[in-house]
Amino acid sequence: MNFLKRTMLCGEPRDSHIGKNVILNGWVQNVRNLGGLIFIDLRDRNGLMQLVIEPENQKELAERATELKQEYVIWAKGDIRKREKSNEKMPTGLVEMLVQDYGIINKAELPPFEILNDIETSEEIKLQYRYLDLRRPVLLNKFVVRNKVYQILHQYYYENNFLEVETPVLMKSTPEGARDFLVPSRINKGKFYALPQSPQLYKQILMISGFDRYMQIVKCFRDEDLRSDRQPEFTQVDVEMSFVDIDDVLSMTEGLIKRIWKEVLGIEIENKFKRMTYVEAMSRYGSDKPDLRYDLELKDITEVVKNCGFSVFKDNISNGGNVAVLNAKGCADFSRKKIDELTNLAKKYGAKGLAWMKFENGEINSPIAKFLQENEINEIKNIAHAENGDLLLFVSDKWTKTYTILGALRIEIAKLSGIYEKIKNDYSFHWVTEFPLFEYDEESNRYVAMHHAFTSPMDEDVELLNTAPDKARAKAYDLVINGAELGGGSIRIHDSKVQQKIFELMNLGPEEIESKFGFFTKALKYGAPPHGGIALGLDRIIMTLCNTDNIRDVIAFPKTTSGLSLMDGCPSAVDIKQLNELSINVIKEK
Amino acid sequence: MNFLKRTMLCGEPRDSHIGKNVILNGWVQNVRNLGGLIFIDLRDRNGLMQLVIEPENQKELAERATELKQEYVIWAKGDIRKREKSNEKMPTGLVEMLVQDYGIINKAELPPFEILNDIETSEEIKLQYRYLDLRRPVLLNKFVVRNKVYQILHQYYYENNFLEVETPVLMKSTPEGARDFLVPSRINKGKFYALPQSPQLYKQILMISGFDRYMQIVKCFRDEDLRSDRQPEFTQVDVEMSFVDIDDVLSMTEGLIKRIWKEVLGIEIENKFKRMTYVEAMSRYGSDKPDLRYDLELKDITEVVKNCGFSVFKDNISNGGNVAVLNAKGCADFSRKKIDELTNLAKKYGAKGLAWMKFENGEINSPIAKFLQENEINEIKNIAHAENGDLLLFVSDKWTKTYTILGALRIEIAKLSGIYEKIKNDYSFHWVTEFPLFEYDEESNRYVAMHHAFTSPMDEDVELLNTAPDKARAKAYDLVINGAELGGGSIRIHDSKVQQKIFELMNLGPEEIESKFGFFTKALKYGAPPHGGIALGLDRIIMTLCNTDNIRDVIAFPKTTSGLSLMDGCPSAVDIKQLNELSINVIKEK
Repeated sequence: MNFLKRTMLCGEPRDSHIGKNVILNGWVQNVRNLGGLIFIDLRDRNGLMQLVIEPENQKELAERATELKQEYVIWAKGDIRKREKSNEKMPTGLVEMLVQDYGIINKAELPPFEILNDIETSEEIKLQYRYLDLRRPVLLNKFVVRNKVYQILHQYYYENNFLEVETPVLMKSTPEGARDFLVPSRINKGKFYALPQSPQLYKQILMISGFDRYMQIVKCFRDEDLRSDRQPEFTQVDVEMSFVDIDDVLSMTEGLIKRIWKEVLGIEIENKFKRMTYVEAMSRYGSDKPDLRYDLELKDITEVVKNCGFSVFKDNISNGGNVAVLNAKGCADFSRKKIDELTNLAKKYGAKGLAWMKFENGEINSPIAKFLQENEINEIKNIAHAENGDLLLFVSDKWTKTYTILGALRIEIAKLSGIYEKIKNDYSFHWVTEFPLFEYDEESNRYVAMHHAFTSPMDEDVELLNTAPDKARAKAYDLVINGAELGGGSIRIHDSKVQQKIFELMNLGPEEIESKFGFFTKALKYGAPPHGGIALGLDRIIMTLCNTDNIRDVIAFPKTTSGLSLMDGCPSAVDIKQLNELSINVIKEK
Repeated sequence: MNFLKRTMLCGEPRDSHIGKNVILNGWVQNVRNLGGLIFIDLRDRNGLMQLVIEPENQKELAERATELKQEYVIWAKGDIRKREKSNEKMPTGLVEMLVQDYGIINKAELPPFEILNDIETSEEIKLQYRYLDLRRPVLLNKFVVRNKVYQILHQYYYENNFLEVETPVLMKSTPEGARDFLVPSRINKGKFYALPQSPQLYKQILMISGFDRYMQIVKCFRDEDLRSDRQPEFTQVDVEMSFVDIDDVLSMTEGLIKRIWKEVLGIEIENKFKRMTYVEAMSRYGSDKPDLRYDLELKDITEVVKNCGFSVFKDNISNGGNVAVLNAKGCADFSRKKIDELTNLAKKYGAKGLAWMKFENGEINSPIAKFLQENEINEIKNIAHAENGDLLLFVSDKWTKTYTILGALRIEIAKLSGIYEKIKNDYSFHWVTEFPLFEYDEESNRYVAMHHAFTSPMDEDVELLNTAPDKARAKAYDLVINGAELGGGSIRIHDSKVQQKIFELMNLGPEEIESKFGFFTKALKYGAPPHGGIALGLDRIIMTLCNTDNIRDVIAFPKTTSGLSLMDGCPSAVDIKQLNELSINVIKEK
C-alpha cells in the first residue's frame, strides 16, 4: 500500500478535534502559496478541509509541496488546530491541519474544467468527463439525496408488508404504446427478448401468484426519440397490491410521499392530497397535470357566445366545439408583440388563432369586440372575473383542444406575470382521477387505452363498453406535483372476460391477443384477485426534490438525446463474430 | 367493487380474536364436506385459516357453498370461534371462522397441480404455470427470505455510508470473458449497446468520481450456454470502496454476512472468517472454494515417490508434475465397482487413471503396491495418516490438475462416506486469497486475467510483471461458504501505467486497448484513488440461506437452460417492422 490510510474524513474536523493528530485522504482542490503560508484545500465526498504548511518552520515540506496540483490524490498527516481566521461558510471552517507529512497517492492531469459548483462548461465536455463532473459537490449531493430516497422507499414498503421482487429484464416483446428495445437470442436463433417498458404484466402475475403486495425499484426502457427530459433507460418505483380499491393505493402512496418530503426536505405535509377528476382538471386548468400552486382558472363561455356575431366562435360551437377563456390577471399592458408570441404558442398546440380582449383605462380593446353584443361582453367579463387591467385570452375548438391550448397559455401567463417566481418554493400535491378509459386514435382508426390495456373501467361504466366505450371512465389516477406527473396507476382488470373485451375494443384480433397476451389472459383464469397499483417516476421525484429540470443531474451516467454515452462512446460497433453468433446482420444504408 | 375487503389476513387469527367478527379474502385451498359440517381452508400469503359452515343452521349458505372449488378467490365474513379440536400444526389452528356470509370474487379453472408444498409435477409444467407454482408456501417463502435480505443489504451499506448508485443497463460492449447480450441501437444504426456482465468499470469510475463508497443490487447478464445452476440474468450485490486495502473490504463483507445469518437464520457467527491462500486451498483441499466443514486433506507425496518403481509417478515427477494422495477414511470396503466409478469421475476431470491402495485386515491391497518399496509405502502411510480400514487415492499429474482431480474426489468421498449427511446443517465461512494474477490460456496462447483485468497485483509482486507474470499474485479474494463461491473481488489497479502493462501482458494491441478501454484508462489519469470491492452473488446467497440447489427456486420468473421463459414464451419472433427500424436482419439457416 502506497499511502497512509485516513483516520477521518475531510469534512469531519471540528473544534472538538483541536490537538488531535489525524490522517486525511482526498483530492487537492487548490493550493495557495501566500509566501508566509501554503494553504491546501483537500476534498472528499464528505467535505473540504484546509491544510497548512509553514515554510518558515517546514522548509523541506514547503519545497516539496510545489509539486502539488489540482486533483492530485494525496494523504496528509498532521495536527488539527484552530484557524486564525475562521471561515463560516465551511463546516470545517473553525480549524485547519498543520501538515506534518504528506504523500502523493496518485497524480492527475490538468482537468478540462475546475471542480467547482458553478462552472461554465459545455454539457458535452461535462458528459465526456463525467467522472470529473460528478466530483462537483452540487452534482454529487443529488446522488446523496437519491440514496436517501432509495432507503425511504425500501423501508416504507417493507414496513407495509410489501415484498420486493425482481422481475425479468429479458422479457417478452409486446409493443403496445412505446417501442421496445430488442435483444437477439443466440440460443434461439431469430427470436428476441425485449427490455421491459414496465414490469406491468409480471407484477400483475405476482398478484395472481398470491404475493399480495409487491414493490420494486426497477429500470425501464423505451426506445423513443428522446426529449431533453427523457432517457432511454429510467427508473420506476413499481408497486402493486391485492384486494384493494383506489383509496388503498392512493393513501399508501401519499404516506410514502409525505415521508420522503419530511425526511429529505424537512417538510411536513399534513392534509390528504386533493383529488380532481380528469374532466375537472382539464376544464379548470387545461391540463391533466395542472399546477395548483396558483389559480388562473379557465372558464367556459360556450353558452354565452353560441349565437354571437363572431363566426369563428359560432361555427365551432355549432360543430360541437367549445369556447373558453383565460383571464391573464393584470396583463392588459402586454404589448402586441407579447400577444403575438402567445398566439404562436397557441398555434404550436394546434390553435388556428388566439382571440383576446384587454380591459384598459376603463375601455375595451379587442379585435373581436365589434362582433359581440354589450351583454355578451358583460357576461364574459362576469364569468372571467375580469377587471380593469386584465387581459382575456379566448380559444375556440374541440373540447380537449380548447382546454389543452388554454392550459399551455395558463402556464406561460404564470411565467410572464411573475406568479412563478412567487411560488417556486411551494409544493402542491394532488391526484387526478377518472381518466377516460380510451382515446380514439384517428391515425390507426381505433381505440387505444389512455393508461394501458389492463386498466379497469369504473364499476358504473362497465356497461358503457358495449354502448359508448369512449365515454367509459377508468379506475386510473395520476399523482401530480407542481404541474408534473410523478406517477400514475390504476386498479386493474381481474376478470378475464372484461380483459378480453378491452382487447377487442382496441381492435386486436384473436391471434394477436393470443400471441401477445395469451399467457396473461390464461393466468387471469386461475384465480386472479382484485388488484391495483402505481408506478412512480423515481428520476422525476429526485428532480423535484433537488429542484432541477435536467434529468441528467439525477442519473449517474446519462445518455444524450441521441442515446449516446459520451464518456464511453456507447453504443458502438461490434465484432462481426458477435453478430454471426446471434445470426443477425446489419442492413447497410443504400 | 365486487367484494367485502378483508379486515384481517388469513394467517392472523389467534385465540385472542375469539368472538370478533372479521372479513377474510383469499384462495380456497380445499373444501371438505363432512355432512354435518363444511370446512373450507382459506389461504393468502400470510397463512391458512379454517372456515366452517354448519348446514344444520345455515341451509342456504351450505347449499350455495357447493359451488366453491379449489383456487376460487372469495371473501368470507364471520365470527372467530374456538375450534373443537385444535390443529397444532397451523398457527391459526386454535380457532376457526363460522361463516356468516361469503362471496366469490373470482373463479378459477382447475389447476394442473394442487397448491401444496410437496407435489410431483414436472419442472416444465411448474414453469408454464409459474403463477400457480409461486402460490406454494414453500416457494413463496423463499421470496420472503429474499425480501428480508434486500432490506438487510440496503440498511447495512447505508449505515456504513455507502451510496447506492444505478449504473447503466445499456452500456458499452467490451467482451472479455463471457459473451455479451447485445441491444441494437435504432437511432445509431449499425451500433449496439451491451447489457452489463457486471458494472465493473462504472463502479471504478464512481470511485474516480469521489463517490467513496458505492453499493448496488444489480442485474447482470451473460450470454453463455447455461448450466442448471446458471441463469442468463442474475443478481449481484456490487460494492466498491475508496482508500482501502484488502482487510477493509473483507471485514466490511464479513459484517454483512454475519448480519444476514443472524437476522435471517438466527445464527451468530462470532469469529473472523478464516483466510487461506489459493495455493493452500488447492494443495490441502484441491479446490479454490473448498468446503471446510470436513477435513479429508490432500497430501503431497512427490518427494516420497520421485524415484519409485512406478513409472507413471516417476515420469510425471521428472516432467515437473506432482503426486498427491487423498485418504478416504474408512473406505477400504469400497467395492471394485465403486472404485471404478471414482476412476471415471477422476477421468472426467482429466485424469489418465486413478491409483489406489486399501489397508484391509492388516494387509495392503493395491495394484501399485508391487512397484513400491516397503519404506515408500510406510512413508505414504505416515503422510496420509492411513490406518487399517482406509482407502488411499493417488493422482499424478501437473500440479493444478493433480489437486483439482483430488478435490473432486474429496467431495465425492465426503458424500459416499456419509460425512455430508452429518455436516449438512453446518456453515463454514472463509476467504481464499492471493490468487494468481494470470492464467495462461493454451488455446489463445496468451495470459488471461484470472479475476479480471483491473485487479491489482500484490505490491511485492509488481516487479514480477516484467520477469515472470505467471508467478505474480493478485490482491484478489473469494468468499467461500460450504464449498460454494458466494462472491469475489479485488483491490483494483489505480495506476494507469500498471493498467496499461496488464493490458499488454494480455496481448491486447494499442488500438484494441483504446477502443475498448480507452475511456477508462483516460479516467485513471485524472486522480484515481486506491480502491477495491467485491461482487456477491445474491441468488447464490439466497439459495444457501434457503438450503436449495435449484437457482429457479429463488428467481421469481426464471429461464430454462435454453434461455426460455416457459410461462410467457419469450424469446419470441418479432415483427419485421421492428427489425427494419433497427436496421437488422435475421440470417436464415442455410
